[in-house]
Amino acid sequence: MSNREIPYKIYLEEQEMPEKWYNVRADMKKKPAPLLNPGTLKPMTYEDLRPVFCDELIRQELDDTTPYIDIPQEIRDFYKMYRPSPLVRAYCLEKKLDTPARIYYKFEGNNTSGSHKLNSAIAQAFYAKKQGLKGVTTETGAGQWGTALSMACSYFDLDCRVYMVKVSYEQKPFRREVMRTYGASVTPSPSETTEVGKKILAAHPGTTGSLGCAISEAVEVATHTQGYRYVLGSVLNQVLLHQSVIGLETKTAMDKYGIQPDIIIGCAGGGSNLGGLISPFMGEKLKGAADYRFIAVEPASCPSLTRGKYAYDFCDTGMVCPLAKMYTLGSGFIPSANHAGGLRYHGMSSVLSELYDQGLMEARSVGQTAVFEAAEQFARVEGILPAPESSHAIRVAIDEALRCKETGEEKTILFGLTGTGYFDMVAYEKFHNGEMTDYIPDDADLKAGFDGIPKFPGNLI
Amino acid sequence: MSNREIPYKIYLEEQEMPEKWYNVRADMKKKPAPLLNPGTLKPMTYEDLRPVFCDELIRQELDDTTPYIDIPQEIRDFYKMYRPSPLVRAYCLEKKLDTPARIYYKFEGNNTSGSHKLNSAIAQAFYAKKQGLKGVTTETGAGQWGTALSMACSYFDLDCRVYMVKVSYEQKPFRREVMRTYGASVTPSPSETTEVGKKILAAHPGTTGSLGCAISEAVEVATHTQGYRYVLGSVLNQVLLHQSVIGLETKTAMDKYGIQPDIIIGCAGGGSNLGGLISPFMGEKLKGAADYRFIAVEPASCPSLTRGKYAYDFCDTGMVCPLAKMYTLGSGFIPSANHAGGLRYHGMSSVLSELYDQGLMEARSVGQTAVFEAAEQFARVEGILPAPESSHAIRVAIDEALRCKETGEEKTILFGLTGTGYFDMVAYEKFHNGEMTDYIPDDADLKAGFDGIPKFPGNLI
Repeated sequence: MSNREIPYKIYLEEQEMPEKWYNVRADMKKKPAPLLNPGTLKPMTYEDLRPVFCDELIRQELDDTTPYIDIPQEIRDFYKMYRPSPLVRAYCLEKKLDTPARIYYKFEGNNTSGSHKLNSAIAQAFYAKKQGLKGVTTETGAGQWGTALSMACSYFDLDCRVYMVKVSYEQKPFRREVMRTYGASVTPSPSETTEVGKKILAAHPGTTGSLGCAISEAVEVATHTQGYRYVLGSVLNQVLLHQSVIGLETKTAMDKYGIQPDIIIGCAGGGSNLGGLISPFMGEKLKGAADYRFIAVEPASCPSLTRGKYAYDFCDTGMVCPLAKMYTLGSGFIPSANHAGGLRYHGMSSVLSELYDQGLMEARSVGQTAVFEAAEQFARVEGILPAPESSHAIRVAIDEALRCKETGEEKTILFGLTGTGYFDMVAYEKFHNGEMTDYIPDDADLKAGFDGIPKFPGNLI
Repeated sequence: MSNREIPYKIYLEEQEMPEKWYNVRADMKKKPAPLLNPGTLKPMTYEDLRPVFCDELIRQELDDTTPYIDIPQEIRDFYKMYRPSPLVRAYCLEKKLDTPARIYYKFEGNNTSGSHKLNSAIAQAFYAKKQGLKGVTTETGAGQWGTALSMACSYFDLDCRVYMVKVSYEQKPFRREVMRTYGASVTPSPSETTEVGKKILAAHPGTTGSLGCAISEAVEVATHTQGYRYVLGSVLNQVLLHQSVIGLETKTAMDKYGIQPDIIIGCAGGGSNLGGLISPFMGEKLKGAADYRFIAVEPASCPSLTRGKYAYDFCDTGMVCPLAKMYTLGSGFIPSANHAGGLRYHGMSSVLSELYDQGLMEARSVGQTAVFEAAEQFARVEGILPAPESSHAIRVAIDEALRCKETGEEKTILFGLTGTGYFDMVAYEKFHNGEMTDYIPDDADLKAGFDGIPKFPGNLI
């Protein structure tokens, strides 16, 4: 098919939507390292994890051999409310950049949660309901995940308790209000409602919180409340599995029009979006069926892949969670307060960390001023106001397209546009007023975080 | 086709999108009354209107005989960025209400302006650009129109000056910031930048502004600045013409699946969305080809159709605009400060007013607490956070579906879901906190507005 025949937006039919998630771990020769029990340093078993996670989700978490896993009908029905999401040919951006490159983006912001997070939220809520639970607990930072989970819980009539990083809770009252619309309770973290919260408040009075603190509180509540479990919006293997729906739809749409991407770009915080987008393409690369360049884009202020250590580390600040092997800045690392938006987690998905370590994926870090420049440029021609997180991918997509302009190469660039920026206007305002600054931690800043990485034989060698 | 085969979302293909707008006036036997020059009380001519509006838009404004008008290719290309919009079967809402009714909604909120307003904004910006203008001026209330116009102007590289009702400017800084992202300048109205603004400020110090004031200021700037014209997001015939794209897409999608609506419902402020949605269906009704019930839903606090007078009135507070014949509460009417969201204009589109006067359309007014109850119920099952404006239509759609439950009738209900509520969380918060109240003006409250309607022979008899 010629390029001219490609529509602005490619929507799959409902019957073309995936019926199975794709588990990229099954095709990895060297598997991601397992979660470890921090007491025994032995791999966490199904039984070890049962007090924290839903049973079926533990099975998915531990399963690194089954390539395709059925998406239950109930979840597929919910997906139909907002999926398939469009794969957009960025004709207007291409024209503006005057580039020979062809740019595509998979837009996941067309649902009320405003991001891709809903893809995993609905799956996790479904399994919780199926298990007969009363409710779930979670943490949220910028608020996309909390919103998605509250929507999913409302649909299945599950109680939803969200611990929201205090600084976001105060700066984003509207995010909180959306969650309340969907019936969730929202508590600023750290709080006095948990033992770990009290401990953190005593040690750091006046702290504005972090994702790591909020995780610790949510896990404590889940494990101490009858009929509750903890759920998480990124980092975990199960989340990447659910998010593979992004990549699977993208690949089906591209195959339908005979499009082959050269470069696939995604923003990376915990890895949920990037992992989901690249999974089926990475599967082909792992099997030698095709080759692609993958680029993970992270904030210069929270550079876990580009400047972190590949080591076992705690997933949370309170150290109540298992150890995960990942590129990490240390569980005590807190990004500078001037950092806008999400992508502020100290570690990176074990799957993506392992793929990166094997050289199958590249990583790049970008400063936030350059990110907002790209966001505004994109918004003006493509008509979508992107989230700061997503705009990291836009930045690098534009950079690559401009490189094509220099070299004359007609590359096909695909990136993930994970969400919209309606709740991030404070950051946009700072940018418009010239008040946005870039913070790049120096090696001394990073050292304190690294010092908190647990020391045991074989770790951090 | 059986109902089970109808997908959750019906997306047309790009090539199924309308190539012409539909002008319902052409099929009305008794035409809407023309705009009058307030000095001479004679119909406004093309030449009279040229200082205010773009030439091509005046032609469209005055044309009540051409049924189909070509949509220029440039506008159709822009439409492809966010259209066709989905026609959604509200399976989840039907199930929740346990109704035998089938409910459909046309969702216009899937673009960054968050509403249907973009359909006319891009058309008006295109004609301004084509005429070689430097820029346009406009007013905005809740902010949807201003956002849409700033997006459209950014696309065509036109200057955009928005006068924003002061109370909204202060309460919705994020709306302002989105407009700035698209390069628009935003001035709180009334302002000291215009003669009419100064006059209004002198007469009413401390006023929080109204749409009528902001229109007066925008018109003054347009008529006093070289290379500028004024554009408007509702009320005018040209706007209803552009918005017919909503109804045309809806009708194509329904025809494709053999769906025949019994009741068509839309919220009505100035009439842009309702007029656009119903146009092609009304055309069939006018020609006797089919019959439908149409219901306009307006706020009880601003009830122009249900409690207004059908008379010639000023379109603006400063009385600088022509007179339009419409159902009106008087150009001095300002809805109670407790009224949340848009739908606060004192008058109603002349086309809809005439159709209503001829008994071809019904109208209903609803209180805002009941509207937010419907909004929340809808959000929880359909996953979209609706704008307060759109939720007026949801309220009546739910009421009609519940009536079907009582009677057992399997009616097909179609409503327009015009936009999303991301920038209306202050109102949602009031609702959640039980602080929302309903204000219904009594006859004495309305009298002051009616007293301002101009008196001349034949008017207000």
